[in-house]
Amino acid sequence: MIGEHSSKQYDHDLEAIRSKVLLMGGIVETQFTDAMTCFRVGNVEAAERVIAEDDAVNQLEVSLDDACSHLIVRRQPTANDLRTVMATIKVITDLERIGDEAAKIARMSKSLHSRGMVTVNHFETVRTIAGETSDMLHDALDAFARLDGKQALALIARDAIIDREFGFIMRNLITFMMEDPRTISAALDTLWVAKAIERIGDHAKNIAEYVIYVVEGKDIRHTRPSAPAVQ
Amino acid sequence: MIGEHSSKQYDHDLEAIRSKVLLMGGIVETQFTDAMTCFRVGNVEAAERVIAEDDAVNQLEVSLDDACSHLIVRRQPTANDLRTVMATIKVITDLERIGDEAAKIARMSKSLHSRGMVTVNHFETVRTIAGETSDMLHDALDAFARLDGKQALALIARDAIIDREFGFIMRNLITFMMEDPRTISAALDTLWVAKAIERIGDHAKNIAEYVIYVVEGKDIRHTRPSAPAVQ
Repeated sequence: MIGEHSSKQYDHDLEAIRSKVLLMGGIVETQFTDAMTCFRVGNVEAAERVIAEDDAVNQLEVSLDDACSHLIVRRQPTANDLRTVMATIKVITDLERIGDEAAKIARMSKSLHSRGMVTVNHFETVRTIAGETSDMLHDALDAFARLDGKQALALIARDAIIDREFGFIMRNLITFMMEDPRTISAALDTLWVAKAIERIGDHAKNIAEYVIYVVEGKDIRHTRPSAPAVQ
Repeated sequence: MIGEHSSKQYDHDLEAIRSKVLLMGGIVETQFTDAMTCFRVGNVEAAERVIAEDDAVNQLEVSLDDACSHLIVRRQPTANDLRTVMATIKVITDLERIGDEAAKIARMSKSLHSRGMVTVNHFETVRTIAGETSDMLHDALDAFARLDGKQALALIARDAIIDREFGFIMRNLITFMMEDPRTISAALDTLWVAKAIERIGDHAKNIAEYVIYVVEGKDIRHTRPSAPAVQ
């Protein structure tokens, strides 16, 4: 049995970690928004900011992993509490990868605009998927902050919508490229941006799954959408 | 201080986990090899096998995460030992994502061959990157098995070679598409396969970084290749 004192210490340490994870979540959310602005209007400063912030995100990942290790060693959490720490360790990895994808979008936007290869359609093509993914990421972080299993569960279905939207964009761009082969290079850049957005959606889904794991105590990764393990 | 008895139990439990991680590594390595065979010769059975094995890999991920949690709760490892468990938890995630990428290659190969859209070049285009990535994955698992920090460090530089090779493939395919727009759809499929291979290389690099973290006690993620934290 863990004493009340130790348990309170654990709660305190865990809360500090959770706050820092949410801070990290806020940074990657801003990175994604800024990266999309850069893709839309070619703001090089915004792109530089996104790329520079990737370092801060990477440092947060390393220090949060450390903080989780220290928490485990010092507080020796029970199985239930440990589940929360394990999920947090996984969420940190997903947040770091979202930062990576945002930085990729920023770098591609910079290159695209500097080469003057921007077409009128380039942002319109990804507007829907970017909006859906941005909402999904926001809601996933919100579900993590409030440990809201219901909200997290609703998010998982939304990832399928993003995947379908990505398929639609790809077919659209193929038609575009076939009609005018001179657009191939620029169309591919837009396709990579769409792919990076779709991956951010995947990571948001992962975060939602970890929230459900903490709240419901069930591991719903790798269950089919048609047969949810949690209701 | 942890007693000798408890420490031996810890070693025993950890060894069981490590064996299972290596089993998982062996499965995803085979998945990748089979997926590439399918891409080369259009073996639908091989593709089905790769896709089916993804379930086994997913189950291994869930059960290994559980085993790591139980190890932490029951054996309460010290900071040093915990580092190994933390690295193992991260390696498991990377292995599962390698399985995902292999299954993606298998699905794309099946679709490509069933539509009869295979060109003579499609496998030649990715032969080099596939070979390099396969070697790199094998060596990363070997470094993990033997906890060989030196081998792991050498691997990190090899990821940059794979990334360069991917850039080369992309430029190559763009030229190909521009010369004959009818090939755009098939060329894009080859490009997605190349991208999946390149991601497997990224995950192999991640595994190598976790090996170094365990061996050297340094977190070398997010350090620049020009200024390695470990020699």
